[in-house]
Amino acid sequence: MSSEFNLIARYFTRPAPQAVLGVGDDAALIAVAPGMELAVSTDMLVSGTHFFADTDPRQLGWKALAVNVSDMAAMGAQPRWATLALALPHADEIWLAAFASGFFACAKAYDIDLVGGDTTRGPLNLSITIFGEIPHGQALRRDGAQPGDDIWVSGTLGGAALALAALQQRTTLDTDDLLACRQLLESPQPRVELGLALRGIASSALDISDGLLGDLKHILERSNVGAELCFDAIPAHPALEPLLAEEWAQRCLLAGGDDYELCFTARREQYAAIKKLEEKLGLKLSRIGHITADAGIQLLDAAGQTIRLPGSGYDHFA
Amino acid sequence: MSSEFNLIARYFTRPAPQAVLGVGDDAALIAVAPGMELAVSTDMLVSGTHFFADTDPRQLGWKALAVNVSDMAAMGAQPRWATLALALPHADEIWLAAFASGFFACAKAYDIDLVGGDTTRGPLNLSITIFGEIPHGQALRRDGAQPGDDIWVSGTLGGAALALAALQQRTTLDTDDLLACRQLLESPQPRVELGLALRGIASSALDISDGLLGDLKHILERSNVGAELCFDAIPAHPALEPLLAEEWAQRCLLAGGDDYELCFTARREQYAAIKKLEEKLGLKLSRIGHITADAGIQLLDAAGQTIRLPGSGYDHFA
Repeated sequence: MSSEFNLIARYFTRPAPQAVLGVGDDAALIAVAPGMELAVSTDMLVSGTHFFADTDPRQLGWKALAVNVSDMAAMGAQPRWATLALALPHADEIWLAAFASGFFACAKAYDIDLVGGDTTRGPLNLSITIFGEIPHGQALRRDGAQPGDDIWVSGTLGGAALALAALQQRTTLDTDDLLACRQLLESPQPRVELGLALRGIASSALDISDGLLGDLKHILERSNVGAELCFDAIPAHPALEPLLAEEWAQRCLLAGGDDYELCFTARREQYAAIKKLEEKLGLKLSRIGHITADAGIQLLDAAGQTIRLPGSGYDHFA
Repeated sequence: MSSEFNLIARYFTRPAPQAVLGVGDDAALIAVAPGMELAVSTDMLVSGTHFFADTDPRQLGWKALAVNVSDMAAMGAQPRWATLALALPHADEIWLAAFASGFFACAKAYDIDLVGGDTTRGPLNLSITIFGEIPHGQALRRDGAQPGDDIWVSGTLGGAALALAALQQRTTLDTDDLLACRQLLESPQPRVELGLALRGIASSALDISDGLLGDLKHILERSNVGAELCFDAIPAHPALEPLLAEEWAQRCLLAGGDDYELCFTARREQYAAIKKLEEKLGLKLSRIGHITADAGIQLLDAAGQTIRLPGSGYDHFA
């Protein structure tokens, strides 16, 4: 058995009780439950583009899977299975063991089976494909927003971007705040429970991984609508809040990447149902504006005056 | 809209009539037909490891998908959908257009919908996940071979490895042979029809992408059996045949990678059915040996004498 297959076998072959056939054949076999559609999403994470080469491999393993889980949450899908393709510059067992421990910790937390993969030599690159189940016709798509719908976000925004700013020494944070924000950046907790609960309530949804404004645009474009947002209603991370007079901090809030919260729209009559959900899940849900018939995003201050928008989402080819 | 999304939209958003929802949301949605299992396989191709950086992007696009289609063929699955994650050093439109044309030519040839993907900046890396349908319980797995089963391969072997040897100037070929062998190396034609036809006939199967001996070992290990092979029965590519006295040519035959043929086992009573299939598909099917209870591979010459084995499959970490 070659070392390539040894590596895969040692670190990535685990029981896959939710699969018909797991790692080790030409393909895995999975059986989608009757009446369910399969949601499928792929993300590729590249060293130097999405993470630092010296990133703690355990955190990287968690995050690589978590960002995919977040796509399932955004669809209202129950994550079930994943595949992992991994290019490594050299077969570093210490790195692999740590990466695998983070990856499988996330898999366990969200009840996901790794059913297949590929390991090869090359510049560090992780490509994960994730699969989730969703009852036929109930997916939270991006194209269902209508004028008059409320716009909501979960949790607080900008914490991950603030951690990055601190790590890059563009700002300083006290120890507790840095710890809390790094946790968001390095070990995101995707909102699967919220996604499942929003089936039948939200008219559209996505996850805010590239920043609120940049991602919201995807809903607006796919739904052929616009949005009016109230700046003061956008929930900032507590460590970011006192800094919001500064423009870079506003950018963290509005366009900072790596917030694995959900942004969703819902008819106004769903307000009470959503507030009930907030209580049930113990997760802050904030109404930040509403959908308009006119295209584009208007950002208003408390006096109803337009605020100039900072740049939108992170662009890997900018 | 950022340039990242522009790139994806321009080259990789095509109608996906076999999907519920294609490219452009947090996840694609597919509906697996009732009674079908989903076969899932992932391959990662890295520049410098699996292909030369200056490889014709159109051929690369074809081959990147074709090697995944071959995994579906090896399972007896009907390929249906795929996702593509692509890291590129820079957003080169000429390269992308050529790559996409090769990729979609293969997708069209095998009736596959691209349902999702990711494009990012990084060292050239292609990661494809493919999905196929297969009736419940009918997959051609690696773990079903039994002592006494015949061992078969489709087509001829070693042509792709011979092309590589010629391109690396380790040997010379006349123009016609070079052209024919390069075609195998650069534009492989996975054996989907054969895989589908082998449902209910083969006891195990896989595709020979890492070389006959290395790949056959996977069947032997998963089935807990061994094999006796007759060297003279192993079908060499016509351009390779006259060279078989030389050891490097034997290695091309037995351990040359990139032969996207199928190796399969079947009970002896399936012989006539398989020969009928050979005729129906117009595809050479050769019985090259049989499964034994003892572990390991014995390679015999025409006189029944043991031949020393060359090294096994290609190892990306060797």
